[in-house]
Amino acid sequence: MVESYEQEQPIDQLQQLNDALDSGMFVHVRMMLNEMPPSDVAHLLESSPPRARNLLWKLVNVEREGDILNYLNDEIRNHFVDQMAPEHLAQALEGLEVDDLADILGELPESVYLEVMASMSEQDRHRVEAALIFPEDTAGGLMNLDTITVRPKVTVDVVSRYLRMKGLPDTTDSIYVVDTHDRLLGAVSLASLITSRQEVLVEELLNDNVETILATMPANEVAQIFERRDLLSAPVVDEEGRLLGRITIDDVVDVIREEAEHSLMSMAGLDEADDTFAPVWSSARRRAIWLGINLLTVLVAAQVIGIFESTIQVVTALAILQPIVPSMGGVAGTQTLTLVIRGISLGHVVAGNSRWLIMKELGVSVINGILWAVAVGTLTYFWFQDLPQAPMLAISIGGAMVVNLIVGVFAGATLPMILRKFNMDPALSGGVILTTITDVVGFFTLLGFATLFFV
Amino acid sequence: MVESYEQEQPIDQLQQLNDALDSGMFVHVRMMLNEMPPSDVAHLLESSPPRARNLLWKLVNVEREGDILNYLNDEIRNHFVDQMAPEHLAQALEGLEVDDLADILGELPESVYLEVMASMSEQDRHRVEAALIFPEDTAGGLMNLDTITVRPKVTVDVVSRYLRMKGLPDTTDSIYVVDTHDRLLGAVSLASLITSRQEVLVEELLNDNVETILATMPANEVAQIFERRDLLSAPVVDEEGRLLGRITIDDVVDVIREEAEHSLMSMAGLDEADDTFAPVWSSARRRAIWLGINLLTVLVAAQVIGIFESTIQVVTALAILQPIVPSMGGVAGTQTLTLVIRGISLGHVVAGNSRWLIMKELGVSVINGILWAVAVGTLTYFWFQDLPQAPMLAISIGGAMVVNLIVGVFAGATLPMILRKFNMDPALSGGVILTTITDVVGFFTLLGFATLFFV
Repeated sequence: MVESYEQEQPIDQLQQLNDALDSGMFVHVRMMLNEMPPSDVAHLLESSPPRARNLLWKLVNVEREGDILNYLNDEIRNHFVDQMAPEHLAQALEGLEVDDLADILGELPESVYLEVMASMSEQDRHRVEAALIFPEDTAGGLMNLDTITVRPKVTVDVVSRYLRMKGLPDTTDSIYVVDTHDRLLGAVSLASLITSRQEVLVEELLNDNVETILATMPANEVAQIFERRDLLSAPVVDEEGRLLGRITIDDVVDVIREEAEHSLMSMAGLDEADDTFAPVWSSARRRAIWLGINLLTVLVAAQVIGIFESTIQVVTALAILQPIVPSMGGVAGTQTLTLVIRGISLGHVVAGNSRWLIMKELGVSVINGILWAVAVGTLTYFWFQDLPQAPMLAISIGGAMVVNLIVGVFAGATLPMILRKFNMDPALSGGVILTTITDVVGFFTLLGFATLFFV
Repeated sequence: MVESYEQEQPIDQLQQLNDALDSGMFVHVRMMLNEMPPSDVAHLLESSPPRARNLLWKLVNVEREGDILNYLNDEIRNHFVDQMAPEHLAQALEGLEVDDLADILGELPESVYLEVMASMSEQDRHRVEAALIFPEDTAGGLMNLDTITVRPKVTVDVVSRYLRMKGLPDTTDSIYVVDTHDRLLGAVSLASLITSRQEVLVEELLNDNVETILATMPANEVAQIFERRDLLSAPVVDEEGRLLGRITIDDVVDVIREEAEHSLMSMAGLDEADDTFAPVWSSARRRAIWLGINLLTVLVAAQVIGIFESTIQVVTALAILQPIVPSMGGVAGTQTLTLVIRGISLGHVVAGNSRWLIMKELGVSVINGILWAVAVGTLTYFWFQDLPQAPMLAISIGGAMVVNLIVGVFAGATLPMILRKFNMDPALSGGVILTTITDVVGFFTLLGFATLFFV
């Protein structure tokens, strides 16, 4: 009987495993671990603090280590791989698909890589070398070499007997038809093989309009094509149209997930490969760098305030109003920035429409700038109406609001486009550059206008 | 011959189409549009400013509108659907898969929905009603009804003839085996059908360990199962184990994409369904709300500064130092918050390990708090060394730094967990609540410490 999957399962298991670990029932834990699918073990390891994680890893059977490593996030995987002896690693990785194998081996230091390769079978070695020709973030790096190829002039019956003998790799939904020079002629889906009579020739079933991917295409473009075309798999070819391998949707799903996470994490100065349960010291070290960069930028903002110290001395109300304008500019700019970063990563924002988009965002910022300038100006006037400077304070903060919202939004729209032009990561602009601009401009305009009026 | 896919294609087409639109060559544009796959047309529409978008939409052939609507993002789709007469819409939607149909119809106002349903064939009406029983964000809402079912005691030969007659729906990789009560017994993959002899019974090929999904399971859990198990499709059953439909990976990819985008967009007060190229006024209105909320929170922070106005009057250097502590607290808190939000959405952060995670993040914040307190304290001392208050300023800012980093990180770690406990969206905490806390605490501690020393 089929049992329905319960989501609670891994969480319950986590609790059970932790209890068992705490009471030292290692035999029991080992049994539980080795009954779980490798992807669930990987998920458990990713959800465990370092001590429990290392204990659990020691209890995994050697022959399952490769599969589990394959499902682990990069940071945790590298942590375990670093501790393994090269022969041990070579043994663990046996039987992995070549694209996954190449991902893991590609990250090793030269000397370890050579040792592991030396411990592998000659066939695997050749396959890994072939896969490592292409960078990890290209179609060639994503592809698998386990394509099934046939010639156009054979019958369905022959193909069926061939497949019965050879077996089909996981997640195969199509076989490929090639000419004598290995050039791809098209694909035949399993569905069409099943629904055809045995005597039909393969070439009659051939779909020659199949989405074909160049090995050098960047991974994120591959993901966009899979998403847009609802593909399950696609053949990968070289410049001459020769079939090199195939990409399957499960590898693309990982790309989509990582890419989407990347923007979120980068904007906070984190990396999508970061381990949530990393030890305190290694987290602290990484975060310190980002805090240090932020400190430098906020010191610039403080310097700007310093220029106007004498104005503040005359009107201390300015110190109270000080945070408002930078905050509003930062929020407006971040909204635009987030929208543009998403638009770029989805392929919506391109050279042809970016001018329109910038103009539209500027339009939005002018409307909101005026709206909130009036609101904040009025509020300021009544807040400080006992002061003789109240009208001038209201005008200063209102003027600063309009300027800073426009500047913030302009920076939010153009920064990611500029970074992309220089082949840099658009999401990088989110964390620090934008708020530096809105802070500096916010303080400068508020205090600058006030100085014009009061000094 | 197979041509390799060029990524430039849609972008070039966008340019070409825009040029053709500008020169009024509508016949040419119509021809180009109707030769492109529907997903590319949807992508073009999503990448076009409103005026061009509306023009392009008018040039699409009616019979392709349904397919294109299906690929469009929610906001743009609703915009077009709102303009269509109910009979027109019913005609356009003919032939869509039932899960997609239900998504579109489920968003319509009651009266339009009834009119569209009345214009549809009886069969489609029943299918839509069946699909709409389940909310859009559950397995039932994702599933399709086009399963192929067979009985266990038939031969592969019979199944093949049956499939030849009936045809196979798109992205079918398995057929399902059910008993006389429609209860799912298991799945048979197309691969195993092809690689078996004709006389073999289906029950011999049966995989009864297939991942089965309850119709009420939330969509994000479905996505996690697909990701973790590398599934292409999965059967959906009711509480009694009866087969209701199947979910395919292409629908899950959309869930993964939307879910990952959701955190990014929510943290900036945006929605993942927001249209990048929305008209100025509608964008301005939506952004204004978020800016208004932000203004309220920053006014709270300003009030806090107001409490200490007399202290600032004595030591204006405080106005200069004022932005540093809130900024550092905000950055540290946002890093923790982002990490925890990602951890929750990946299913890594659960009840059993959240205590450990909070303690670890607090550890990180203590280390960084002390480090940057010393750094900023020293800096402040030398910056203002001409003032008699320099040592006390340094101590005030250092103390405030430690407190605010700890508070910010604690808030960043616990806020999303608390929101989730109340079934609210964890990402909501990112935009406003966290920075309000770090601003208020930052200003209060800096100015509060200073007041203790100087007044």
